[in-house]
Amino acid sequence: MEPTDMEKLMRAVLGRIFVPLEASGRHVHVTQQQALALFGHDLTPDRELSQPGQFLAKERLKVLGPKGEFEHVAVLGPARKEAQVEISLTDGKTLGIRPPVRLSGDVKDSPGCTLVGPRGRVQLSQGVICARRHIHLTPEEGRRFSVADKQVVKLETFTERPTIFEDVVVRISADFAGAVHLDYDEANACGFRNGDWGRIIP
Amino acid sequence: MEPTDMEKLMRAVLGRIFVPLEASGRHVHVTQQQALALFGHDLTPDRELSQPGQFLAKERLKVLGPKGEFEHVAVLGPARKEAQVEISLTDGKTLGIRPPVRLSGDVKDSPGCTLVGPRGRVQLSQGVICARRHIHLTPEEGRRFSVADKQVVKLETFTERPTIFEDVVVRISADFAGAVHLDYDEANACGFRNGDWGRIIP
Repeated sequence: MEPTDMEKLMRAVLGRIFVPLEASGRHVHVTQQQALALFGHDLTPDRELSQPGQFLAKERLKVLGPKGEFEHVAVLGPARKEAQVEISLTDGKTLGIRPPVRLSGDVKDSPGCTLVGPRGRVQLSQGVICARRHIHLTPEEGRRFSVADKQVVKLETFTERPTIFEDVVVRISADFAGAVHLDYDEANACGFRNGDWGRIIP
Repeated sequence: MEPTDMEKLMRAVLGRIFVPLEASGRHVHVTQQQALALFGHDLTPDRELSQPGQFLAKERLKVLGPKGEFEHVAVLGPARKEAQVEISLTDGKTLGIRPPVRLSGDVKDSPGCTLVGPRGRVQLSQGVICARRHIHLTPEEGRRFSVADKQVVKLETFTERPTIFEDVVVRISADFAGAVHLDYDEANACGFRNGDWGRIIP
Protein backbone atom coordinates (compact mmCIF):
# COMPACT_ATOMS: atom_id res chain seq x y z
CA MET A 1 0.00 0.00 0.00
CA GLU A 2 1.32 3.46 -0.91
CA PRO A 3 2.02 5.85 1.99
CA THR A 4 -0.48 8.31 0.47
CA ASP A 5 -3.19 5.61 0.54
CA MET A 6 -2.28 4.82 4.15
CA GLU A 7 -2.48 8.52 4.95
CA LYS A 8 -5.90 8.78 3.31
CA LEU A 9 -7.12 5.73 5.23
CA MET A 10 -5.79 7.16 8.52
CA ARG A 11 -7.56 10.45 7.89
CA ALA A 12 -10.80 8.65 6.99
CA VAL A 13 -10.67 6.55 10.17
CA LEU A 14 -9.71 9.49 12.42
CA GLY A 15 -12.29 11.70 10.71
CA ARG A 16 -15.07 9.41 11.97
CA ILE A 17 -14.18 10.33 15.56
CA PHE A 18 -12.29 13.62 15.43
CA VAL A 19 -12.30 16.93 13.55
CA PRO A 20 -9.06 18.45 12.26
CA LEU A 21 -7.96 21.67 14.01
CA GLU A 22 -6.89 24.72 12.04
CA ALA A 23 -5.40 28.00 13.27
CA SER A 24 -6.57 31.16 11.48
CA GLY A 25 -4.14 34.06 11.53
CA ARG A 26 -5.25 37.67 11.23
CA HIS A 27 -6.82 38.36 7.84
CA VAL A 28 -9.02 40.76 5.91
CA HIS A 29 -12.07 40.34 3.67
CA VAL A 30 -12.81 43.22 1.29
CA THR A 31 -15.52 44.12 -1.24
CA GLN A 32 -14.76 44.14 -4.96
CA GLN A 33 -14.94 47.94 -4.93
CA GLN A 34 -12.48 48.12 -2.02
CA ALA A 35 -10.12 45.71 -3.82
CA LEU A 36 -10.11 48.11 -6.79
CA ALA A 37 -9.41 51.10 -4.50
CA LEU A 38 -6.63 49.28 -2.60
CA PHE A 39 -4.93 47.28 -5.37
CA GLY A 40 -6.26 48.69 -8.66
CA HIS A 41 -7.66 45.28 -9.64
CA ASP A 42 -9.64 42.28 -8.39
CA LEU A 43 -8.14 39.85 -5.86
CA THR A 44 -5.75 37.31 -7.39
CA PRO A 45 -5.98 33.75 -5.99
CA ASP A 46 -2.66 32.49 -4.59
CA ARG A 47 -3.74 29.19 -3.02
CA GLU A 48 -6.94 27.41 -2.03
CA LEU A 49 -8.01 27.22 1.62
CA SER A 50 -9.61 24.27 3.40
CA GLN A 51 -13.12 25.66 2.87
CA PRO A 52 -14.15 25.02 -0.78
CA GLY A 53 -14.09 28.15 -2.99
CA GLN A 54 -12.19 30.25 -0.44
CA PHE A 55 -8.68 31.38 -1.36
CA LEU A 56 -5.70 33.25 0.02
CA ALA A 57 -5.07 36.22 -2.29
CA LYS A 58 -1.64 37.26 -3.58
CA GLU A 59 -2.44 40.80 -2.39
CA ARG A 60 -1.49 41.94 1.12
CA LEU A 61 -2.66 44.93 3.18
CA LYS A 62 -1.47 47.12 6.00
CA VAL A 63 -4.01 47.30 8.86
CA LEU A 64 -3.81 50.51 10.91
CA GLY A 65 -5.26 51.05 14.37
CA PRO A 66 -5.00 53.97 16.79
CA LYS A 67 -2.01 52.43 18.63
CA GLY A 68 -0.22 50.27 16.08
CA GLU A 69 -0.28 48.49 12.75
CA PHE A 70 0.33 45.18 11.03
CA GLU A 71 2.05 44.96 7.64
CA HIS A 72 1.50 42.26 4.99
CA VAL A 73 -1.82 41.07 6.42
CA ALA A 74 -3.43 38.20 4.48
CA VAL A 75 -6.45 38.98 2.29
CA LEU A 76 -8.96 36.19 1.69
CA GLY A 77 -11.17 35.89 -1.37
CA PRO A 78 -13.56 35.87 -3.03
CA ALA A 79 -14.67 39.48 -2.43
CA ARG A 80 -17.55 39.89 0.03
CA LYS A 81 -20.51 42.23 0.34
CA GLU A 82 -18.95 43.90 3.37
CA ALA A 83 -15.40 44.27 4.63
CA GLN A 84 -14.30 42.31 7.70
CA VAL A 85 -11.01 42.32 9.58
CA GLU A 86 -10.47 39.25 11.80
CA ILE A 87 -7.84 39.65 14.51
CA SER A 88 -7.02 37.98 17.83
CA LEU A 89 -7.42 39.78 21.16
CA THR A 90 -3.59 39.89 21.30
CA ASP A 91 -3.57 41.66 17.91
CA GLY A 92 -6.18 44.05 19.29
CA LYS A 93 -3.76 45.13 22.05
CA THR A 94 -1.16 45.98 19.39
CA LEU A 95 -3.64 47.94 17.24
CA GLY A 96 -5.36 49.64 20.18
CA ILE A 97 -8.73 48.11 19.32
CA ARG A 98 -10.84 45.77 21.49
CA PRO A 99 -12.73 43.68 18.93
CA PRO A 100 -15.98 41.99 19.95
CA VAL A 101 -15.97 38.17 19.78
CA ARG A 102 -18.39 37.48 16.91
CA LEU A 103 -19.28 35.00 14.21
CA SER A 104 -18.03 35.91 10.74
CA GLY A 105 -20.43 38.32 9.02
CA ASP A 106 -21.72 39.83 12.28
CA VAL A 107 -19.92 43.18 12.16
CA LYS A 108 -22.72 45.59 13.20
CA ASP A 109 -21.38 48.33 15.51
CA SER A 110 -17.94 46.72 15.70
CA PRO A 111 -14.88 49.03 15.69
CA GLY A 112 -13.34 50.25 12.43
CA CYS A 113 -9.75 50.62 11.23
CA THR A 114 -7.78 51.78 8.21
CA LEU A 115 -6.68 49.49 5.37
CA VAL A 116 -3.67 50.58 3.30
CA GLY A 117 -2.89 48.97 -0.07
CA PRO A 118 -0.36 49.81 -2.82
CA ARG A 119 -2.93 51.93 -4.71
CA GLY A 120 -4.90 53.58 -1.94
CA ARG A 121 -6.41 53.43 1.51
CA VAL A 122 -9.89 52.58 2.78
CA GLN A 123 -11.32 53.81 6.09
CA LEU A 124 -13.66 51.21 7.64
CA SER A 125 -16.25 52.59 10.06
CA GLN A 126 -16.87 49.05 11.34
CA GLY A 127 -15.76 45.47 10.61
CA VAL A 128 -13.02 44.56 13.11
CA ILE A 129 -13.97 41.40 15.01
CA CYS A 130 -12.34 38.56 16.88
CA ALA A 131 -13.70 35.41 15.25
CA ARG A 132 -15.79 33.34 17.63
CA ARG A 133 -14.45 29.80 17.57
CA HIS A 134 -16.46 27.56 15.30
CA ILE A 135 -16.57 24.22 13.56
CA HIS A 136 -17.30 23.78 9.85
CA LEU A 137 -19.07 20.51 9.07
CA THR A 138 -20.79 18.96 6.07
CA PRO A 139 -24.39 17.74 6.62
CA GLU A 140 -23.05 14.17 6.68
CA GLU A 141 -20.50 15.04 9.37
CA GLY A 142 -23.21 16.86 11.35
CA ARG A 143 -25.28 13.66 11.41
CA ARG A 144 -22.23 11.58 12.32
CA PHE A 145 -21.43 13.80 15.31
CA SER A 146 -25.13 14.28 16.21
CA VAL A 147 -24.96 18.07 16.03
CA ALA A 148 -27.13 20.62 14.22
CA ASP A 149 -26.34 23.92 12.48
CA LYS A 150 -25.81 26.76 15.01
CA GLN A 151 -25.59 24.28 17.90
CA VAL A 152 -23.15 25.34 20.63
CA VAL A 153 -20.86 22.52 21.74
CA LYS A 154 -17.66 21.88 23.65
CA LEU A 155 -14.52 20.89 21.81
CA GLU A 156 -11.72 18.88 23.42
CA THR A 157 -8.31 19.33 21.81
CA PHE A 158 -5.74 16.53 21.67
CA THR A 159 -2.82 18.90 21.74
CA GLU A 160 0.34 19.65 23.76
CA ARG A 161 -1.73 21.69 26.25
CA PRO A 162 -5.08 19.84 26.22
CA THR A 163 -8.06 22.17 26.49
CA ILE A 164 -11.83 21.92 26.33
CA PHE A 165 -13.13 25.00 24.55
CA GLU A 166 -16.71 25.76 25.58
CA ASP A 167 -19.11 27.91 23.56
CA VAL A 168 -18.01 26.62 20.13
CA VAL A 169 -20.55 27.17 17.35
CA VAL A 170 -21.24 24.46 14.78
CA ARG A 171 -21.84 25.65 11.22
CA ILE A 172 -23.19 23.08 8.77
CA SER A 173 -23.25 23.47 4.99
CA ALA A 174 -22.71 21.29 1.95
CA ASP A 175 -20.14 23.94 0.93
CA PHE A 176 -17.95 23.25 3.97
CA ALA A 177 -15.16 20.81 4.76
CA GLY A 178 -14.88 19.49 8.32
CA ALA A 179 -12.52 21.73 10.33
CA VAL A 180 -12.32 23.54 13.67
CA HIS A 181 -11.25 27.17 13.31
CA LEU A 182 -9.28 28.61 16.23
CA ASP A 183 -7.52 31.95 16.33
CA TYR A 184 -3.83 32.19 17.24
CA ASP A 185 -4.52 32.93 20.92
CA GLU A 186 -6.59 29.78 21.17
CA ALA A 187 -4.14 27.77 19.06
CA ASN A 188 -1.21 28.76 21.30
CA ALA A 189 -3.22 28.35 24.50
CA CYS A 190 -3.82 24.69 23.58
CA GLY A 191 -0.34 24.17 22.10
CA PHE A 192 -1.72 23.42 18.63
CA ARG A 193 0.54 22.02 15.93
CA ASN A 194 -0.39 21.26 12.32
CA GLY A 195 -2.09 17.89 12.08
CA ASP A 196 -3.72 18.04 15.54
CA TRP A 197 -7.30 16.89 16.09
CA GLY A 198 -10.23 17.75 18.33
CA ARG A 199 -13.33 15.92 19.56
CA ILE A 200 -16.82 17.41 19.59
CA ILE A 201 -18.65 17.07 22.92
CA PRO A 202 -22.34 17.77 22.07
CA MET B 1 -21.50 48.32 55.87
CA GLU B 2 -18.59 49.94 54.02
CA PRO B 3 -18.17 48.99 50.34
CA THR B 4 -14.68 47.67 51.14
CA ASP B 5 -16.18 45.36 53.77
CA MET B 6 -18.79 44.21 51.24
CA GLU B 7 -16.01 43.59 48.74
CA LYS B 8 -14.05 41.57 51.29
CA LEU B 9 -17.14 39.54 52.13
CA MET B 10 -17.87 38.90 48.44
CA ARG B 11 -14.30 37.72 47.87
CA ALA B 12 -14.47 35.48 50.94
CA VAL B 13 -17.74 33.90 49.79
CA LEU B 14 -16.60 33.51 46.16
CA GLY B 15 -13.22 32.22 47.34
CA ARG B 16 -14.91 29.21 48.93
CA ILE B 17 -16.08 28.04 45.47
CA PHE B 18 -13.81 29.71 42.94
CA VAL B 19 -10.16 30.71 42.48
CA PRO B 20 -9.22 34.13 41.11
CA LEU B 21 -7.64 34.11 37.64
CA GLU B 22 -4.48 36.07 36.91
CA ALA B 23 -2.71 36.67 33.59
CA SER B 24 1.10 36.65 33.70
CA GLY B 25 2.83 38.65 31.00
CA ARG B 26 6.33 37.87 29.78
CA HIS B 27 8.92 38.36 32.51
CA VAL B 28 12.45 37.53 33.59
CA HIS B 29 14.00 36.16 36.79
CA VAL B 30 17.73 36.80 37.25
CA THR B 31 20.42 35.84 39.77
CA GLN B 32 21.93 38.48 42.04
CA GLN B 33 25.17 38.31 40.06
CA GLN B 34 23.28 38.83 36.79
CA ALA B 35 21.40 41.80 38.32
CA LEU B 36 24.77 43.39 39.12
CA ALA B 37 26.03 42.76 35.57
CA LEU B 38 22.83 44.08 33.95
CA PHE B 39 21.94 47.01 36.24
CA GLY B 40 25.00 47.64 38.40
CA HIS B 41 22.99 46.98 41.57
CA ASP B 42 20.45 44.64 43.19
CA LEU B 43 16.82 44.56 42.03
CA THR B 44 14.68 47.40 43.41
CA PRO B 45 11.11 46.47 44.45
CA ASP B 46 8.46 48.53 42.62
CA ARG B 47 5.26 46.80 43.78
CA GLU B 48 4.23 43.56 45.48
CA LEU B 49 2.72 40.70 43.47
CA SER B 50 -0.12 38.39 44.50
CA GLN B 51 2.31 35.72 45.73
CA PRO B 52 3.72 36.81 49.12
CA GLY B 53 7.35 38.03 48.99
CA GLN B 54 7.41 38.28 45.19
CA PHE B 55 7.77 41.72 43.64
CA LEU B 56 7.86 43.51 40.31
CA ALA B 57 11.24 45.27 40.06
CA LYS B 58 11.72 48.84 38.88
CA GLU B 59 14.37 47.52 36.49
CA ARG B 60 13.46 46.45 32.95
CA LEU B 61 15.36 44.36 30.40
CA LYS B 62 15.58 43.85 26.68
CA VAL B 63 15.16 40.18 25.69
CA LEU B 64 16.87 39.25 22.41
CA GLY B 65 16.17 36.16 20.32
CA PRO B 66 17.45 35.07 16.91
CA LYS B 67 14.46 36.62 15.08
CA GLY B 68 13.27 39.49 17.26
CA GLU B 69 13.32 41.24 20.60
CA PHE B 70 11.15 42.69 23.35
CA GLU B 71 11.99 45.96 25.09
CA HIS B 72 11.09 46.93 28.69
CA VAL B 73 10.40 43.35 29.80
CA ALA B 74 9.34 43.03 33.46
CA VAL B 75 11.86 41.64 35.95
CA LEU B 76 10.51 39.84 39.02
CA GLY B 77 12.27 39.63 42.36
CA PRO B 78 13.73 38.48 44.62
CA ALA B 79 16.81 37.22 42.75
CA ARG B 80 16.87 33.47 42.07
CA LYS B 81 19.57 30.81 41.93
CA GLU B 82 19.13 30.50 38.16
CA ALA B 83 17.84 32.84 35.47
CA GLN B 84 14.48 32.10 33.87
CA VAL B 85 12.66 33.88 31.03
CA GLU B 86 8.92 33.16 30.87
CA ILE B 87 7.26 33.92 27.54
CA SER B 88 4.10 32.85 25.72
CA LEU B 89 4.20 30.71 22.57
CA THR B 90 3.12 33.87 20.69
CA ASP B 91 6.16 35.71 22.13
CA GLY B 92 8.28 32.74 21.04
CA LYS B 93 7.25 33.32 17.40
CA THR B 94 8.43 36.95 17.65
CA LEU B 95 11.76 36.00 19.24
CA GLY B 96 12.36 32.98 17.01
CA ILE B 97 12.44 30.61 19.98
CA ARG B 98 10.10 27.66 20.64
CA PRO B 99 10.03 27.43 24.44
CA PRO B 100 9.09 24.14 26.10
CA VAL B 101 5.94 24.25 28.27
CA ARG B 102 7.38 23.75 31.76
CA LEU B 103 6.77 24.46 35.42
CA SER B 104 8.77 27.36 36.85
CA GLY B 105 12.27 26.24 37.85
CA ASP B 106 12.44 23.40 35.31
CA VAL B 107 14.79 24.96 32.76
CA LYS B 108 17.13 22.06 31.98
CA ASP B 109 18.01 21.94 28.26
CA SER B 110 15.58 24.76 27.45
CA PRO B 111 16.65 27.35 24.83
CA GLY B 112 18.71 30.39 25.80
CA CYS B 113 18.53 34.06 24.81
CA THR B 114 20.33 37.34 25.44
CA LEU B 115 19.37 39.80 28.20
CA VAL B 116 20.37 43.43 27.73
CA GLY B 117 20.35 45.90 30.64
CA PRO B 118 21.58 49.48 30.99
CA ARG B 119 24.96 48.32 32.37
CA GLY B 120 25.64 45.20 30.37
CA ARG B 121 24.38 42.06 28.68
CA VAL B 122 24.08 38.45 29.82
CA GLN B 123 24.03 35.48 27.45
CA LEU B 124 21.80 32.67 28.81
CA SER B 125 22.62 29.19 27.52
CA GLN B 126 19.21 27.99 28.81
CA GLY B 127 16.22 29.33 30.75
CA VAL B 128 13.52 30.30 28.23
CA ILE B 129 10.27 28.48 29.01
CA CYS B 130 6.55 28.87 28.49
CA ALA B 131 5.03 28.58 31.97
CA ARG B 132 2.81 25.53 32.34
CA ARG B 133 -0.54 26.71 33.65
CA HIS B 134 -0.79 26.25 37.39
CA ILE B 135 -2.79 27.09 40.47
CA HIS B 136 -1.24 28.47 43.67
CA LEU B 137 -3.12 27.39 46.79
CA THR B 138 -2.56 27.54 50.53
CA PRO B 139 -2.79 24.20 52.42
CA GLU B 140 -6.22 25.30 53.70
CA GLU B 141 -7.44 26.01 50.17
CA GLY B 142 -6.04 22.67 49.02
CA ARG B 143 -8.15 20.89 51.65
CA ARG B 144 -11.21 22.98 50.75
CA PHE B 145 -10.95 22.06 47.05
CA SER B 146 -9.87 18.46 47.80
CA VAL B 147 -6.66 18.68 45.82
CA ALA B 148 -3.05 17.83 46.69
CA ASP B 149 0.28 19.42 45.81
CA LYS B 150 1.36 18.52 42.22
CA GLN B 151 -2.11 17.15 41.42
CA VAL B 152 -3.16 17.74 37.81
CA VAL B 153 -6.70 19.09 37.52
CA LYS B 154 -9.04 20.76 35.06
CA LEU B 155 -9.95 24.41 35.48
CA GLU B 156 -13.18 25.90 34.16
CA THR B 157 -13.06 29.65 33.51
CA PHE B 158 -16.09 31.89 33.96
CA THR B 159 -14.99 34.32 31.29
CA GLU B 160 -16.18 35.87 28.03
CA ARG B 161 -15.00 32.80 26.12
CA PRO B 162 -15.58 30.01 28.63
CA THR B 163 -12.88 27.34 28.55
CA ILE B 164 -11.92 24.25 30.51
CA PHE B 165 -8.15 24.11 30.70
CA GLU B 166 -6.96 20.53 31.18
CA ASP B 167 -3.52 19.60 32.53
CA VAL B 168 -3.36 22.36 35.15
CA VAL B 169 -0.88 21.70 37.97
CA VAL B 170 -1.79 22.49 41.58
CA ARG B 171 1.01 23.91 43.74
CA ILE B 172 0.36 24.08 47.46
CA SER B 173 2.44 26.05 49.96
CA ALA B 174 1.84 28.13 53.07
CA ASP B 175 3.80 30.85 51.18
CA PHE B 176 1.17 31.05 48.43
CA ALA B 177 -2.04 32.99 47.91
CA GLY B 178 -4.87 31.32 45.98
CA ALA B 179 -4.58 32.24 42.28
CA VAL B 180 -4.64 30.62 38.84
CA HIS B 181 -1.73 31.72 36.66
CA LEU B 182 -2.43 31.80 32.92
CA ASP B 183 -0.17 33.24 30.25
CA TYR B 184 -1.45 35.87 27.81
CA ASP B 185 -2.30 33.32 25.10
CA GLU B 186 -4.47 31.44 27.56
CA ALA B 187 -5.92 34.64 29.03
CA ASN B 188 -6.94 35.91 25.59
CA ALA B 189 -8.17 32.50 24.44
CA CYS B 190 -10.65 32.49 27.33
CA GLY B 191 -11.42 36.24 27.08
CA PHE B 192 -10.07 36.92 30.59
CA ARG B 193 -10.68 40.28 32.23
CA ASN B 194 -9.39 41.43 35.61
CA GLY B 195 -11.62 40.11 38.39
CA ASP B 196 -12.61 36.88 36.58
CA TRP B 197 -12.78 33.58 38.44
CA GLY B 198 -12.24 29.89 37.69
CA ARG B 199 -13.45 26.62 39.24
CA ILE B 200 -11.20 23.66 39.96
CA ILE B 201 -12.48 20.33 38.62
CA PRO B 202 -10.42 17.68 40.50
